Amino acid sequence: MQEAQFIGLLWTIGILAEAMTGALAAGRKQMDLFGVVIIGCATAIGGGTLRDILLGNYPLIWVENWHYLLAIALASLLTVVIAPVMRYLSKLFLAIDALGLAVFSIVGAQKSLMLGFSPVVAVVMGLVTGVFGGVIRDILCNQVPLIFQKELYAVISLLTAGLYILLLQYQVEEWLNLLVCLATGFSLRMLALKYHWSMPTFDYQSGTDNPMH
Amino acid sequence: MQEAQFIGLLWTIGILAEAMTGALAAGRKQMDLFGVVIIGCATAIGGGTLRDILLGNYPLIWVENWHYLLAIALASLLTVVIAPVMRYLSKLFLAIDALGLAVFSIVGAQKSLMLGFSPVVAVVMGLVTGVFGGVIRDILCNQVPLIFQKELYAVISLLTAGLYILLLQYQVEEWLNLLVCLATGFSLRMLALKYHWSMPTFDYQSGTDNPMH
Amino acid sequence: MQEAQFIGLLWTIGILAEAMTGALAAGRKQMDLFGVVIIGCATAIGGGTLRDILLGNYPLIWVENWHYLLAIALASLLTVVIAPVMRYLSKLFLAIDALGLAVFSIVGAQKSLMLGFSPVVAVVMGLVTGVFGGVIRDILCNQVPLIFQKELYAVISLLTAGLYILLLQYQVEEWLNLLVCLATGFSLRMLALKYHWSMPTFDYQSGTDNPMH
Repeated sequence: MQEAQFIGLLWTIGILAEAMTGALAAGRKQMDLFGVVIIGCATAIGGGTLRDILLGNYPLIWVENWHYLLAIALASLLTVVIAPVMRYLSKLFLAIDALGLAVFSIVGAQKSLMLGFSPVVAVVMGLVTGVFGGVIRDILCNQVPLIFQKELYAVISLLTAGLYILLLQYQVEEWLNLLVCLATGFSLRMLALKYHWSMPTFDYQSGTDNPMH
Repeated sequence: MQEAQFIGLLWTIGILAEAMTGALAAGRKQMDLFGVVIIGCATAIGGGTLRDILLGNYPLIWVENWHYLLAIALASLLTVVIAPVMRYLSKLFLAIDALGLAVFSIVGAQKSLMLGFSPVVAVVMGLVTGVFGGVIRDILCNQVPLIFQKELYAVISLLTAGLYILLLQYQVEEWLNLLVCLATGFSLRMLALKYHWSMPTFDYQSGTDNPMH
Repeated sequence: MQEAQFIGLLWTIGILAEAMTGALAAGRKQMDLFGVVIIGCATAIGGGTLRDILLGNYPLIWVENWHYLLAIALASLLTVVIAPVMRYLSKLFLAIDALGLAVFSIVGAQKSLMLGFSPVVAVVMGLVTGVFGGVIRDILCNQVPLIFQKELYAVISLLTAGLYILLLQYQVEEWLNLLVCLATGFSLRMLALKYHWSMPTFDYQSGTDNPMH
């Protein structure tokens, strides 16, 4: 197996897992099956879509290859069927989601570099790919995006994408680079969940928005 | 009258009607006249704009032809004036909205096919054109998008766009195809409203988001 | 100093000030430091980014020149540190925000004209540049966008962009045009805050969304 195939396989697992977490979020809002599919799709491919729109990189992956859309829609609907079982699989899902976070961050950085953008932009696009599917999901579900409030998530995406680019610049062999970054991103996320690592929060309660009167 | 002129006329009626439903939604949130115009514009042209951004199809219709923007803004403001009467016209508006749903779905599919995209992408873009104006309206009004929760709406968009493409592939004459699809989409939507047809909903109440601790 | 340098300097001050208002909004929602940076970035460059996506104008400014992103992120984090002092600086901030509104509106209109778009589109893009950073901030913070409900804000953006284009067409000297438009936009905004000028609101309470049953 080539590196590209390996990362492609993980990416496919990742978008299907994200589709399922999106479907569950839709279920928490008692949406209908159509809403479940839309939220599933937005969660799975929203981050990559936003990245490509920001970079002006057309055609979008799912526009060029609609089989991804179909697979994501089916994964979303499957979630409705197997939801009763998913309670018992929640640790498995958190693990797949952690892996997906690392994979998306690496893939987003890779694509940006291949398109000729700078390393800083590549790290930012790793972040966009890794976490904005979840942000779009939360906006569509009318709630403050979770990743702005909870355990370390987005920072791990930044670190993973940054590490990948750093090792690339030191000409570390591609396979080794991928494995190190996947392991780092995945482990950090699992540890953050287990030990409730989180960023400091900023609590600003102003008396008024308009002190001019 | 040519087919293109006929569908163009219906499309214009459709965007003006959508602008008015957007203006009413802004009124339910006690927005100011500026908010009314913005929500009216976003509802009327948000779906088509999102479609063209996703396809990378520039320039956008309203950027190339600003007369549409002006007409939509005026329709939004007119809504404020005639709002007291609109209560009595609500059935008429639901009918125009149902027609607009069918027209937008067909137009979105047509445009995608003309740009050389696959039939599956064309159906998805019919859906995006048909329903995402309403989704953007609901996001700007800070509520869970209605179409994810209420009577059949989005599915009718999918069916209408899909039927259009199917008949096109069987080389049904364009006029006949348009009339059949318009009648089908319109009738299904009116029946869905009358008999409260809706999709099954998915209700998922999980105990915790983080089973790792 | 050239006109372009002068307006560029004001623009830089403007995006940094917007980043800080974004950071404060994140603090009102008790977001973590990562959320603070994201909301700061979205507020500062969201309007210009949306404008360039709507116009298909690539690469985006911050993709081409990532130093802006870094400066915005640092300004957002700095806000957390100096928040206790900012209560006493709120009038200063409102003044910088008013200046930023005028600058963004002028810059948005200028860019659109330079890209060859019509004056009407340029005014609309002045508006998008001037106010949609704040709209995106409010969507990410899960609240109805302030500018649809409060003191005159968006209309001042429209007026400023429109005045700039009008004076341009009468071939008013560029420096004079800039100063007149900045003074007009800034003064109108400060007066609107001081005297609570606002647009009429539209209050529409309908009994039902579905009169078909």
